[in-house]
Amino acid sequence: MNLELISKIARSTPSKIVLFVVDGLGGLPHPDTGKTELEAANIPNLSRLAGNSICGLTDPVFPGISPGSGPGHLALFGYDPVKNLIGRGVLEALGIGLELEDGDLAVRGNFCTVEGDVIVDRRAGRIPTNESVELCQQLNKIKLQGVETSVHPVKDHRFVVIFRGPGLSEDVSESDPQRTDAAPLEIMALSPSAGETARIANEFVAQAREILSSRRTANMVLLRGFSMLPHLPPMSEVYRLRPAAIASYPMYRGLAKIVGMDTLDTGLALQDELVTLGRHFSNYDFFYIHYKATDAAGEDGDFGRKVKALEELDEHIPDLLTLKPDVIVVTGDHSTPAVLAAHSWHPVPVLIHSRWCRPDRVASFTERTCASGSLGRFPATHVMPLALAYAQKLAKFGA
Amino acid sequence: MNLELISKIARSTPSKIVLFVVDGLGGLPHPDTGKTELEAANIPNLSRLAGNSICGLTDPVFPGISPGSGPGHLALFGYDPVKNLIGRGVLEALGIGLELEDGDLAVRGNFCTVEGDVIVDRRAGRIPTNESVELCQQLNKIKLQGVETSVHPVKDHRFVVIFRGPGLSEDVSESDPQRTDAAPLEIMALSPSAGETARIANEFVAQAREILSSRRTANMVLLRGFSMLPHLPPMSEVYRLRPAAIASYPMYRGLAKIVGMDTLDTGLALQDELVTLGRHFSNYDFFYIHYKATDAAGEDGDFGRKVKALEELDEHIPDLLTLKPDVIVVTGDHSTPAVLAAHSWHPVPVLIHSRWCRPDRVASFTERTCASGSLGRFPATHVMPLALAYAQKLAKFGA
Repeated sequence: MNLELISKIARSTPSKIVLFVVDGLGGLPHPDTGKTELEAANIPNLSRLAGNSICGLTDPVFPGISPGSGPGHLALFGYDPVKNLIGRGVLEALGIGLELEDGDLAVRGNFCTVEGDVIVDRRAGRIPTNESVELCQQLNKIKLQGVETSVHPVKDHRFVVIFRGPGLSEDVSESDPQRTDAAPLEIMALSPSAGETARIANEFVAQAREILSSRRTANMVLLRGFSMLPHLPPMSEVYRLRPAAIASYPMYRGLAKIVGMDTLDTGLALQDELVTLGRHFSNYDFFYIHYKATDAAGEDGDFGRKVKALEELDEHIPDLLTLKPDVIVVTGDHSTPAVLAAHSWHPVPVLIHSRWCRPDRVASFTERTCASGSLGRFPATHVMPLALAYAQKLAKFGA
Repeated sequence: MNLELISKIARSTPSKIVLFVVDGLGGLPHPDTGKTELEAANIPNLSRLAGNSICGLTDPVFPGISPGSGPGHLALFGYDPVKNLIGRGVLEALGIGLELEDGDLAVRGNFCTVEGDVIVDRRAGRIPTNESVELCQQLNKIKLQGVETSVHPVKDHRFVVIFRGPGLSEDVSESDPQRTDAAPLEIMALSPSAGETARIANEFVAQAREILSSRRTANMVLLRGFSMLPHLPPMSEVYRLRPAAIASYPMYRGLAKIVGMDTLDTGLALQDELVTLGRHFSNYDFFYIHYKATDAAGEDGDFGRKVKALEELDEHIPDLLTLKPDVIVVTGDHSTPAVLAAHSWHPVPVLIHSRWCRPDRVASFTERTCASGSLGRFPATHVMPLALAYAQKLAKFGA
């Protein structure tokens, strides 16, 4: 996909696109029944929609790659997920709803336990979140020259540090040796301009150690995933869209902001998200809706709950159709088969609904039926150009 | 696709390939019947051929992109249609059969109407072609230092200017502001070496204005699409072919010349083209045949006429088979659904016939049946390597 080409032929029109991202959509057969979550679910509305759509399978990154949420979403938004890898620090910060500014350096931290200089537990026994909250308050006393520092608890032993100030660099090494029986590593500059950042980060670690020194566990920190917001051209420029995101989880709101979407206030339930869609339908021409329950059930290895999440989704499809968007895309950012209890590399079902579709022979929405759809199997970065084309938002390329 | 790789393994053999380009081949369902043009047409010979071939769908540029004739054809000839975009001036010149030389600068012109300095009609009321012919004769009096200038009518208010001389550049801005109530823009150099070209073009505009100054309408010109022939390695070098083009419309003859094909004299009718094919069959090992009627009917939004054009094509398939080419490819340069009355982004049916095909289960030649063919959905730039392979013109790659 070629964003530069798209930006030259994209045109603003009144037509409306809804990109419905069913997180972790694809699955694998249950060993007892041989049916995947989609095949086991009672989803008549999605089946009917698939029958009036074109279907296929996407590879979020490329075949064989299990993507995180960052690459999975960036690909769906049409941005190269390999060239624009979002670092762990940034994703962790987005995930807890922090507002990052350009040039902020976000870092993922662990509380760990050391004896002398040697790490004996990289996760400090996964201390409870409330303990972590308290320790982060203490670390917020750290003062460093030239930068503002803030420390934010995430979950269990995990936290985020944000360094804010001029001239920071993400090009530094990590302090986590990724094993016990070793000392935390000194943070090193990996390029000439990163020397000051390395100094700052090491000073942060030294002060943190001092603050935590009276403790027997969780008495040290490990830092990794030093990263900054990537610079991506906003969807308004590349696609000439007025885009809005309807997502209740902070990470997905953050990912949407990175590509320049407005993030609309919404409740946690899918029903709330659809109410939000209806309320703002006239104000935007592109909506990204995120549905988390499928992925959460898949990650927990709960096949039945993932089936139920799909059935709940199906019940809301008529609400979506009532709004008559010109183009509806239903797909996922990756597969999360319950039998794997993890994100996987399996390609993801996709349907595109528009009056300009050539209907194919797919009459239900499953991994197996989509495999014979007329969209074929294709990189997820093509979803956006296809959606724009079916909404007649792309002019002819070349004479 | 990788032309460099292909050029290393291509070998000259006596086997013969016919690439039959049915312009604007793919369509969309008619709202009354739900059938596409291909599905509505009575095309028993194409169906039988598809039954003995492998089938699929191509994306000329990439999914979602509606290509012009230039990118659509270059992709079928195996050349990257994005990197080798052919400018509007060149295509317009090819379209009226002008012979361009290397280094010629071709420009698309409009007669427009100005009042004072301000454009009031960008197309001068679409003056009739015969009036345009006369005005072009007057503009042919323009003399510029250092270059030969020639002005050629196209249709209505449109014309082509060719600047011929040393050191010209296509890297200049356009004079057409793309709106009325503005003055024509000065043409500016967009790179340091284009200064002289900008001066020449502005001088042309000034003299044209002087010549047309006594008129009330069509009293000024707008120039855009400054472009030169691209430098593409000829098919004889890349593919080791002796290629010939059988196309009656000038633009397609021009596109074929750009990739080094001989262009054979032929009549307008498809029957004439097939007679030409028969007459020259022993002299070449690659033939590109162009059939225009399908696209013309599609562009006119005439579903019935497009169906008839397909049926006429079908009647001539036996003539083609009689010659027993080793490989027959039937496909289009893009889709032109009659219901859209325009080139579209929909993928294009393709069949490849050869004794070395693994027959798939496709038994008719339509968008829907080809969607489940064994070629799958693939970029049109892969058509040439496939044709060469099935003609046994590619040696093994690597040891």
